[in-house]
Amino acid sequence: MLERIRIVLIGTSHPGNIGGVARAMHNMGLADLALVAPRCEVITQDSISRASGADHLLHEAKVYPTLEDAVADCTLAVGASARSRTLPWPMISPRELAERLPGECQPENSHVALVFGREDSGLTNAELQRCHAHVHIPTNADFSSLNLAAAVQVIAYECRMAWLSQQGTVNTAQEDNDALATHIELERYFEHLERTLIAIEFHDPAQPRQLMARLRRLYLRARPEKMEMNILRGILSATEKAADQHRPRS
Amino acid sequence: MLERIRIVLIGTSHPGNIGGVARAMHNMGLADLALVAPRCEVITQDSISRASGADHLLHEAKVYPTLEDAVADCTLAVGASARSRTLPWPMISPRELAERLPGECQPENSHVALVFGREDSGLTNAELQRCHAHVHIPTNADFSSLNLAAAVQVIAYECRMAWLSQQGTVNTAQEDNDALATHIELERYFEHLERTLIAIEFHDPAQPRQLMARLRRLYLRARPEKMEMNILRGILSATEKAADQHRPRS
Repeated sequence: MLERIRIVLIGTSHPGNIGGVARAMHNMGLADLALVAPRCEVITQDSISRASGADHLLHEAKVYPTLEDAVADCTLAVGASARSRTLPWPMISPRELAERLPGECQPENSHVALVFGREDSGLTNAELQRCHAHVHIPTNADFSSLNLAAAVQVIAYECRMAWLSQQGTVNTAQEDNDALATHIELERYFEHLERTLIAIEFHDPAQPRQLMARLRRLYLRARPEKMEMNILRGILSATEKAADQHRPRS
Repeated sequence: MLERIRIVLIGTSHPGNIGGVARAMHNMGLADLALVAPRCEVITQDSISRASGADHLLHEAKVYPTLEDAVADCTLAVGASARSRTLPWPMISPRELAERLPGECQPENSHVALVFGREDSGLTNAELQRCHAHVHIPTNADFSSLNLAAAVQVIAYECRMAWLSQQGTVNTAQEDNDALATHIELERYFEHLERTLIAIEFHDPAQPRQLMARLRRLYLRARPEKMEMNILRGILSATEKAADQHRPRS
């Protein structure tokens, strides 16, 4: 899916921004960069420095004279737009865009273009009207101008999230749960804990004041692992030993 | 909600990155910027240029000597981490983080810290171990290093999306978090815990074997309440007393 997503930059004027876009793309696994009538050199010290290791995207970038040429083979073109225009267009959020991508990218040879405008003036109405939809990154109404690389970063991140969730691997899910303490291990711990608290005279079973219930709630919430249970049991044993060692015998 | 989210940058070395972070924050409606031991000037031509109109955040940024100071009043601290560490910590995605924020930010006077490390080396293990959880921006495995401002941009965008979706939804009753222990209360507990473990001869600081790190991870995961913290501190005091009482005097 990600290889079918093309980032199209129109009339970019700062090489550093192209470099920043390349870095953001490569970070998120996008590789297809198209430049429409750039108003600056593409390969410069600044663009290579901002690309920070993703400069192969700069070298592989295709340069086109017009938006038409850049998106000719695309089945979907979505333009990034900060403002609502005189003629309202279908407007989607980056997340809504991302949700459409897996379906849009499924047909063989399909390509999707995500189009970003000039640093100073964005996309023209003519360019926006060549797009199927407009994507608007929700920003602070008082300060809506995003840096070009930052805008690509947000959109590319949503693309990657959609791709990951399609893979079924978006779960940052926990390391395997094999290691979690079992119920019986927890219960043995609570018994040991109560004995120890009595030994150090912190707990009086005749006046329990919900102490054990509170401690249960705390430790159960933490979902202790076996290894952690061993540490806590070790602490209890050391506590008993320290309390008992010098205790006067009756 | 957004006003309760603090972006904490540790040891930043490029003024331009601090400016880029300020712009990303202001774009998404965040305003609380904390700098821990920055390794560069904060207000420079470069930082003001990259802030691109958000330079009031640079002027209002608070500078702290340590992470501790920057997050002392926070009930939740989440560290941005690119890699999994030797000791795995609860790891969430930016979206999972965002889903937690409305609840976390609801109690009066609550503050949430999102902590970002150095450009070259990220957060140290000690810094990561002061965080309740780690947030990992899913990146291309072959090219995972995000620019600092780009990382803040992605996280701040998710914060804003969560805030926007909260505006549009009925306020679901969150459990009351008023009672959560603050960072400084937790740190005092860990200090007390370590002293006590040394006193009962369970812990040898000369051979730490990650003991304190493991205990930190366990207790931070449980998100202790103030009341629970009091119980745990009470247990430590009773343990010290029991260990000490009958100790042979030299």
